[in-house]
Amino acid sequence: MLIIGEKINSTRKRIKEALAQRDAEFLEGLAVAQAEAGADYLDLNTGAFPAEEIELMEWLVETVQQATSMPLAIDSSNPAVLEAGLELNKNGTPFINSITLEEPKYSTVLPLVKKYDAKILALAIGKEGIATTIEGRFAHAKELIEALCAEGIEPARIYLDPLIQPVSVQNDFGVIALEVIRRVMQEFPDVNTICGLSNVSYGLPNRKYVNGCFLAMAMASGLNSAILDPLDVEIMEVLTASEALLGNDRFCKNYIKKFRNRS
Amino acid sequence: MLIIGEKINSTRKRIKEALAQRDAEFLEGLAVAQAEAGADYLDLNTGAFPAEEIELMEWLVETVQQATSMPLAIDSSNPAVLEAGLELNKNGTPFINSITLEEPKYSTVLPLVKKYDAKILALAIGKEGIATTIEGRFAHAKELIEALCAEGIEPARIYLDPLIQPVSVQNDFGVIALEVIRRVMQEFPDVNTICGLSNVSYGLPNRKYVNGCFLAMAMASGLNSAILDPLDVEIMEVLTASEALLGNDRFCKNYIKKFRNRS
Repeated sequence: MLIIGEKINSTRKRIKEALAQRDAEFLEGLAVAQAEAGADYLDLNTGAFPAEEIELMEWLVETVQQATSMPLAIDSSNPAVLEAGLELNKNGTPFINSITLEEPKYSTVLPLVKKYDAKILALAIGKEGIATTIEGRFAHAKELIEALCAEGIEPARIYLDPLIQPVSVQNDFGVIALEVIRRVMQEFPDVNTICGLSNVSYGLPNRKYVNGCFLAMAMASGLNSAILDPLDVEIMEVLTASEALLGNDRFCKNYIKKFRNRS
Repeated sequence: MLIIGEKINSTRKRIKEALAQRDAEFLEGLAVAQAEAGADYLDLNTGAFPAEEIELMEWLVETVQQATSMPLAIDSSNPAVLEAGLELNKNGTPFINSITLEEPKYSTVLPLVKKYDAKILALAIGKEGIATTIEGRFAHAKELIEALCAEGIEPARIYLDPLIQPVSVQNDFGVIALEVIRRVMQEFPDVNTICGLSNVSYGLPNRKYVNGCFLAMAMASGLNSAILDPLDVEIMEVLTASEALLGNDRFCKNYIKKFRNRS
């Protein structure tokens, strides 16, 4: 599993405060902690400050790079912010979060994927918005993957996100995501699948628990990457157990190492 | 999900003692407790007493039927024991646990399935034993399902068990079971799939946790029945959450009822 650490996101209250105060020490600590906990990428988002989103992203990229050489996922709905972050990136192949088929997003983000040889988080959203059936959602996923490939983006750089919506809102939203993951992995074996988990449990009690169950299900459906909080012990335990159950942990070594002190 | 309560099994030490002492009160209590906790069937097994397995099964069926009208799963490798239990059954359609393609098991259990209009737990084991690849295991599942159907057993009475083996023994044993569940549900949509979970975690620490992750994965792969301990709060919580995530819990009502007091 490739893990993008999600913590440095300005929509979180504590992060927003730290960004407002330019609290480099706190944010550097969070970057290092996520890396040590098993993240492969660090997501950086400054979208809660629309008026200074570019300036803050530049400061954040430089700050985090002083603390760690872990690769970065530049996260913004504003292509100018993406480019500002990518321009300063020194930590290897970056991730762009994200592209969809919507315009002008598609046409403005695509050149950045090419220019910076980036990995791209591709959200299964069509030109007219989000489909609410398996067929419709998969059609958008397929159209987006094929469009990116036609532009010369290698399948291995594409991370398709089926888009996770709350099962409390529409009962089959979980199944739609699982089925899109499965079909993408079948039809495009070299493309990756990724998702954030927490949306699935919106509106329900005991959300972490639901998110854990859903991670196990999504991994069994073929998910090979996730945006999550690597400091969340429970979710990382599900991940470790699921890797063992899916045969991705030779001799169950990692699992046994993590759980050996439990009966 | 159809749940077969697994607790009244003579391989468990406490049950073996109760059977040896003909402790009707204890066993009746366990029957009622499983029914109240959500079981749809009660498994009965007296195999730990080979010399008196028939006599004990007869006593057990009559004892349990005094406490509950919940349907029974008669569980034995000895067809004479199965018949003895089935003959005394008054609790509606019984389950037979189990049949395989092995002889003489197949030829001796099949007439019982017909005579008692029973549901049948069909283990994916071939004439020569257990296959250790997805293709081989599925071939056995298919052969067994088709043989039963050719004998006039309705698909809805067949519960195919992919056979769960420990991932600590062979890393892909989990994937084999998940994939056989998926393919059976695809190729034989009217056949059910069932499994016991606990074998998957043999040899690992923190077994209940692994079993819970595997249940979520198996349900996402199409599993619609399970043999488990309905008094195991943790496994029943995974089941409830998984039903909600898979769209089988309208408005997530059961989930919310169970978890509403947790943050």
